[in-house]
Amino acid sequence: MPISLGELATRFGCELIGDPDTEVSGVASLLNAGPQSLTFLASKAYKEQLPSTKAAAVILRPDDAADSPVAAILADDPYACYARMAAVVCPPPSFAPGVHPSAVVEATASVTESAHLAPNVVVGERSTIGENVYLGPGTVIGPDCHIGDDCRFIANVTLARAVAIGKRGIFHPGVVLGSDGFGNAMTPDGWVKVPQVGGVVIGNDVEIGSNTCVDCGAIGDTVIEDGVRLDNLCMIAHNVRVGAHTAMASMVAIAGSTTIGKRCMFAGMGGAVGHITICDDVVVAAQSYVSKDVTVPGVYLASFPAEPAREWAKQVGRFRRIEALQNRVKKLEKK
Amino acid sequence: MPISLGELATRFGCELIGDPDTEVSGVASLLNAGPQSLTFLASKAYKEQLPSTKAAAVILRPDDAADSPVAAILADDPYACYARMAAVVCPPPSFAPGVHPSAVVEATASVTESAHLAPNVVVGERSTIGENVYLGPGTVIGPDCHIGDDCRFIANVTLARAVAIGKRGIFHPGVVLGSDGFGNAMTPDGWVKVPQVGGVVIGNDVEIGSNTCVDCGAIGDTVIEDGVRLDNLCMIAHNVRVGAHTAMASMVAIAGSTTIGKRCMFAGMGGAVGHITICDDVVVAAQSYVSKDVTVPGVYLASFPAEPAREWAKQVGRFRRIEALQNRVKKLEKK
Amino acid sequence: MPISLGELATRFGCELIGDPDTEVSGVASLLNAGPQSLTFLASKAYKEQLPSTKAAAVILRPDDAADSPVAAILADDPYACYARMAAVVCPPPSFAPGVHPSAVVEATASVTESAHLAPNVVVGERSTIGENVYLGPGTVIGPDCHIGDDCRFIANVTLARAVAIGKRGIFHPGVVLGSDGFGNAMTPDGWVKVPQVGGVVIGNDVEIGSNTCVDCGAIGDTVIEDGVRLDNLCMIAHNVRVGAHTAMASMVAIAGSTTIGKRCMFAGMGGAVGHITICDDVVVAAQSYVSKDVTVPGVYLASFPAEPAREWAKQVGRFRRIEALQNRVKKLEKK
Repeated sequence: MPISLGELATRFGCELIGDPDTEVSGVASLLNAGPQSLTFLASKAYKEQLPSTKAAAVILRPDDAADSPVAAILADDPYACYARMAAVVCPPPSFAPGVHPSAVVEATASVTESAHLAPNVVVGERSTIGENVYLGPGTVIGPDCHIGDDCRFIANVTLARAVAIGKRGIFHPGVVLGSDGFGNAMTPDGWVKVPQVGGVVIGNDVEIGSNTCVDCGAIGDTVIEDGVRLDNLCMIAHNVRVGAHTAMASMVAIAGSTTIGKRCMFAGMGGAVGHITICDDVVVAAQSYVSKDVTVPGVYLASFPAEPAREWAKQVGRFRRIEALQNRVKKLEKK
Repeated sequence: MPISLGELATRFGCELIGDPDTEVSGVASLLNAGPQSLTFLASKAYKEQLPSTKAAAVILRPDDAADSPVAAILADDPYACYARMAAVVCPPPSFAPGVHPSAVVEATASVTESAHLAPNVVVGERSTIGENVYLGPGTVIGPDCHIGDDCRFIANVTLARAVAIGKRGIFHPGVVLGSDGFGNAMTPDGWVKVPQVGGVVIGNDVEIGSNTCVDCGAIGDTVIEDGVRLDNLCMIAHNVRVGAHTAMASMVAIAGSTTIGKRCMFAGMGGAVGHITICDDVVVAAQSYVSKDVTVPGVYLASFPAEPAREWAKQVGRFRRIEALQNRVKKLEKK
Repeated sequence: MPISLGELATRFGCELIGDPDTEVSGVASLLNAGPQSLTFLASKAYKEQLPSTKAAAVILRPDDAADSPVAAILADDPYACYARMAAVVCPPPSFAPGVHPSAVVEATASVTESAHLAPNVVVGERSTIGENVYLGPGTVIGPDCHIGDDCRFIANVTLARAVAIGKRGIFHPGVVLGSDGFGNAMTPDGWVKVPQVGGVVIGNDVEIGSNTCVDCGAIGDTVIEDGVRLDNLCMIAHNVRVGAHTAMASMVAIAGSTTIGKRCMFAGMGGAVGHITICDDVVVAAQSYVSKDVTVPGVYLASFPAEPAREWAKQVGRFRRIEALQNRVKKLEKK
């Protein structure tokens, strides 16, 4: 959507150095930006690209403004400012209200007139769909679900049952919410399934990435609080609670009944065992998992980055010889 | 489904201490249970919640019965007893037989009259659907598949081709069965695909979690034996055999042609390399993978739980200095 | 498809020892092969099975030919030869061109007459579908996508938007391409979504396994070059580039903006952090992740295979006592 630099600056309360009538119609990186592009400089690593940018305007810190060869929009946090302005310049696709003829809405379900139901959408019994909700192709909303206003389900999302979602959520393809938790009792005859009767409660402004799963509670609900961000292929087990504004990168797994605080961050392939509590503001590093309660904010990890195979083999060899070393030291000490 | 305590106790052969005419219509935790709820006490950790429960009845061990403020159902294994009774009190949703007008059944396929085909279901050529099977919305059964009686496919499940399933299986949304295994031959011109012509054979009473994948065999079949439980986002590669009553938590990956015994358990993010054999009754811990044959039952692991970053950095530093330490000891020994 | 040994040998330029008129109609392992089966011997581990095979013919190295009890097809690389011949004997299922009545094609999309659109397929605005493309049941092609000739989408594949694919690609069920990358800016009010406006560009002859995700670029494109093989449940983040003929086994995750060279191989659960460059011909081992630029081809790893729990506990104990050991050595040195 073309918009003038003046209007952008005014809307977000930023100082503009340059012609307010210049229009931008897209976003680009510093190097690839053209005369209609908005770009940004947030990291020093890219500072050297600034002089050669051909963008319409650069969002940057006041300190960097003097080096900009083009119009400058000043912001203390250029990346956050870019995020907000880019959402204006490149808004999500618009859609018309209405229900495609191939969509199936159960008689006891309720769908607002402003919602969009794409081809092959199914809305189950007793479920309710809020205002301006977009249900993309193939999305299945099972029974007893409640979708807040302005949520978007891109395509082929599945809500098994009993999922309540707040406003403005974004759910990417292949997401599965509310399917049964992994509850089984061992008996002499093998596993007996433990009925999973809880639901899933998701707050406002939550975004969940492709093929991520959030199971329903066994008894009581699984809870995702406001503003949570889950990347692709994550796993949230039954009765987990994820605190507000916590973010998890891809392939993070949280086992059952664990409570995670607010503003936590999990790097890719991180995780937590079940039945523990992790306080606010905890960072879990890549391929590291938390095995007990965490009560102190900070960074937690336990992983070794890959090294050349020969080096690693030597390390492992030494690791396995620690005992021999201990014995040699003991012997020396006795002398 | 409301049912009297007397009927529950009789059906499962349990002793009841309390009024047999009291009815329960739901399940709940000890703390949240109300006068129509069935609850249970299986772990000592929750014993202190027993005196304050307001449940209709508690399933517990005979030793704990005296401390129950409400009716007590006695069981040596309260959790297993709860699983069975909860399935009566909270049965899976019922469904009417019939084929939704939007479902597509190929002419050479065969579907029983008692089966339910929800909207947008597709049943491929030569496939057969057993009695009382539930195929939820968007489920695709590819060609040459055979689904046993009483199976449930919640929604958006995909069987690529040649999958044979026993009775009473449960398949959650996003499950993919029978897609091609990862078979490629390297050539000077790049990878050449190796046709994957085997199928998948799944026994009775198997449950597979959301977005889990079981590939077809390259030659011969991939096999999941009776009573297996796979959690969400697991990966079973071509020609793997998973023994009866084995359970895998989420994000477990088993590489090709590996055979896993009966009653094994894999914790989250565990796994096994390809072409090995793991005996019965093996437990693989979280984020640990088995790299060679296992012939002795027991627990196997190799992972470090996360610690505060500073502590871990020290450990890694010491780890890297083992060699220096060895040299210092050698020097001392020479003296 | 029945074919004579003579025709197979001629087509692929192999020497045949045996009756050229013998027909094969399927493939099988050495042990299970019958008189109409083609089989192969590629690994010495299976050499002992050769004398008892009942196959119509065995593909093997010239050195092994004398030991074959049946017809022999000679090849320097029997596995690659098998891959090519098996594709002739067991070709992928054929399909008739045409659009199923339940498929929905937007008015601005373009679909060739030779393409097959199965039930419940959706093709979005401005998207183009090439010659002989197979779009299996439930596949959703979002807006602005371009699918090259001879691609196959097995079933329930989702392209969110702006995905361009070359020729002859194979995409298994549950694959998600082009969904939003994980871009968020932290602010005092929580995360602000960073619009993801790039696309995905995929080369020729790429195969992507079930439930694998490839995100669109934040700015600019995510790129998968020719001949890449991704197994199931992998994650390719925004703006990653995967070099030609690179292969990744299941559950590999590559974080954002990382560039991977040609002919690399990642074992299961491997990965790479974001914003790094990995050169050609790098092998990353199971459950190992690369944390910095790699400029030298070779094998990289850092993982411990699982051991019996008691052994591992001892190792961890010794690991934690390295510091004490250092202090004891220091004390000895002072003497």
